[in-house]
Amino acid sequence: MRAVVYSGPKQVAITDVAERPVGPGQVRLKVAFNGICGTDLHEYYAGPIFVPTEPHPLTGEALPVVLGHEFSGTVTEVGSEVTSLVVGDRVTVLPVYSCGECLACQGGRPNVCAKVGFHGLSTDGGMAETTVVDEGMAFKLPDSVSLELGALTEPMAVAYHAVKLGDPDPSGTALVFGAGPIGIGLWFALKGQGIDDVFVVEPSPVRRESIERLGAKTIDPTSVDIPAFIAEHTGGNGVTAAYDAAGVTASVQTALACLGAARTMVSVAIYEKPLETPLIQLVLREARIQGTLCYTADDYRAVIELMAAGHYDTTGWLETIAMDDLVTEGFEALHAGQKMKVLVDPSR
Amino acid sequence: MRAVVYSGPKQVAITDVAERPVGPGQVRLKVAFNGICGTDLHEYYAGPIFVPTEPHPLTGEALPVVLGHEFSGTVTEVGSEVTSLVVGDRVTVLPVYSCGECLACQGGRPNVCAKVGFHGLSTDGGMAETTVVDEGMAFKLPDSVSLELGALTEPMAVAYHAVKLGDPDPSGTALVFGAGPIGIGLWFALKGQGIDDVFVVEPSPVRRESIERLGAKTIDPTSVDIPAFIAEHTGGNGVTAAYDAAGVTASVQTALACLGAARTMVSVAIYEKPLETPLIQLVLREARIQGTLCYTADDYRAVIELMAAGHYDTTGWLETIAMDDLVTEGFEALHAGQKMKVLVDPSR
Repeated sequence: MRAVVYSGPKQVAITDVAERPVGPGQVRLKVAFNGICGTDLHEYYAGPIFVPTEPHPLTGEALPVVLGHEFSGTVTEVGSEVTSLVVGDRVTVLPVYSCGECLACQGGRPNVCAKVGFHGLSTDGGMAETTVVDEGMAFKLPDSVSLELGALTEPMAVAYHAVKLGDPDPSGTALVFGAGPIGIGLWFALKGQGIDDVFVVEPSPVRRESIERLGAKTIDPTSVDIPAFIAEHTGGNGVTAAYDAAGVTASVQTALACLGAARTMVSVAIYEKPLETPLIQLVLREARIQGTLCYTADDYRAVIELMAAGHYDTTGWLETIAMDDLVTEGFEALHAGQKMKVLVDPSR
Repeated sequence: MRAVVYSGPKQVAITDVAERPVGPGQVRLKVAFNGICGTDLHEYYAGPIFVPTEPHPLTGEALPVVLGHEFSGTVTEVGSEVTSLVVGDRVTVLPVYSCGECLACQGGRPNVCAKVGFHGLSTDGGMAETTVVDEGMAFKLPDSVSLELGALTEPMAVAYHAVKLGDPDPSGTALVFGAGPIGIGLWFALKGQGIDDVFVVEPSPVRRESIERLGAKTIDPTSVDIPAFIAEHTGGNGVTAAYDAAGVTASVQTALACLGAARTMVSVAIYEKPLETPLIQLVLREARIQGTLCYTADDYRAVIELMAAGHYDTTGWLETIAMDDLVTEGFEALHAGQKMKVLVDPSR
């Protein structure tokens, strides 16, 4: 079958690889769509980062790997001992492997397992005609959720999980920094969790217009004194949660200046280096910065339910490309900021 | 009466001022001891910071003020409507003024009141022969707690409150950065809250020896790879809480590198500028940085109870000076790192 094989920075080959056998408790999926994640870009331009160069402690695998951890597909083969899936089921996949034994796993947080691994990074993933996953990683999609939308479950679950960790107050104001795919996901998740008064901070006019078309209120940080605006808007109380999906010093500093007493800024960005962070802002208001990573099965179920209810609108920010065009129409176009979110169709 | 009057940076006068009248619901205290806080040093060398230059929204007062917010004393005069105190009562004082109306106050967090003020910063304080406080600010000291120890209730409550916000696990390991007075208070508070496995990180040999004499385990960060040590010591799980009472980049970066999954570093320092903070460490383990400010009445009660039980030992790190020696034997000696903690005796 054809697949995207990653072997190092700027080294991806769309080539034929052998299909893996389906073991007990596993299913094979015909991949419908696989999203390109920021993580994939980091691997392509500056990797390997998450892709292991030594055998991964859980998967036992290392470079080269087939990329792709945001995908949907249809079950085409069912292994022994599988009880919940049959051929023809349409599913999306929670691509996390965890050890089940460390303190984090024992505490119900497999997303921060000490040995955490990912389908499509620590072992072959979904940028391929087919892929093999454990039964428990596959979540059935309701009839009303398209395979295209289903492929977005992973990034939307990242955002949904992040929103929960910020504990926003439904009667208060929330701030989102960055209107990329995760910023969009944060906005949908906040709305889905009952938070109505949300402002999205984004310097790019194109991205602002894009999320405004979905219904969001935006702020241009190049022309607005955001702390002053928020102070006035909230009667001096500040926001009840802020989300940094921009990952730059300005977003962190502005977010902390807008936080209410004892409130949270959630970091949902891959920070490439330490940032000048005004920790005094945390001290003076007993506020906090909370990191967030991935999601749990509950987040997947919640996002799929919102998708089934028609909550997510992909108008204007999603496009699909053929697998052969991955580098030019995918990585390079995303890296240049020419596109927002790209799905790869392995059948093309 | 004689008092320490602050009117700007390096401008303190030990001089005669009028005693204030005791209003309804207030008491006058003969001050026994008043500790010099890091905040006082900041005001002396780089202020005014907390001392208002315009009338404070709660006290209506501004420069000049009598300093002193860490003090104990004996009731010498009782105003009308006071029901819980009589002349002769030995007390320590919770020096926080709050509005009672803002979101923080309504949520039970007067320590982060939007208008928060302090006795000894926003109005005349305890570096004086006498001072007048509201009845509710005075906490009676048990017979077994000396007035000298009682004057330490405030900084020990800062540390006690900080420890609670870190939510350390009694079966795990905790790290304290900095062995100054707050670091010492953190160590006592951790022990007092049942956390036995605590390491105090401190580069100064003098300060390490000082806290070691109290029974603490210490680490010299100039000779130990602390993340490697903690990884081995905790079986790869990391610490269940870290406390930054050093306020420097190295302490923050090391603390974050040692945190376990979903665990907390508490910031209990006055950061003079933004620090290069590796937020990626928070993201990868869903960890957090939690600011902490002051304390609540519950913290005061808990610290006084521990004091009464003989938990706090001031051997080797506390000394008392006469009020006239405040600048030379107090501010300057502390600023030069020659002393750890200094109490002012206004009767001398």
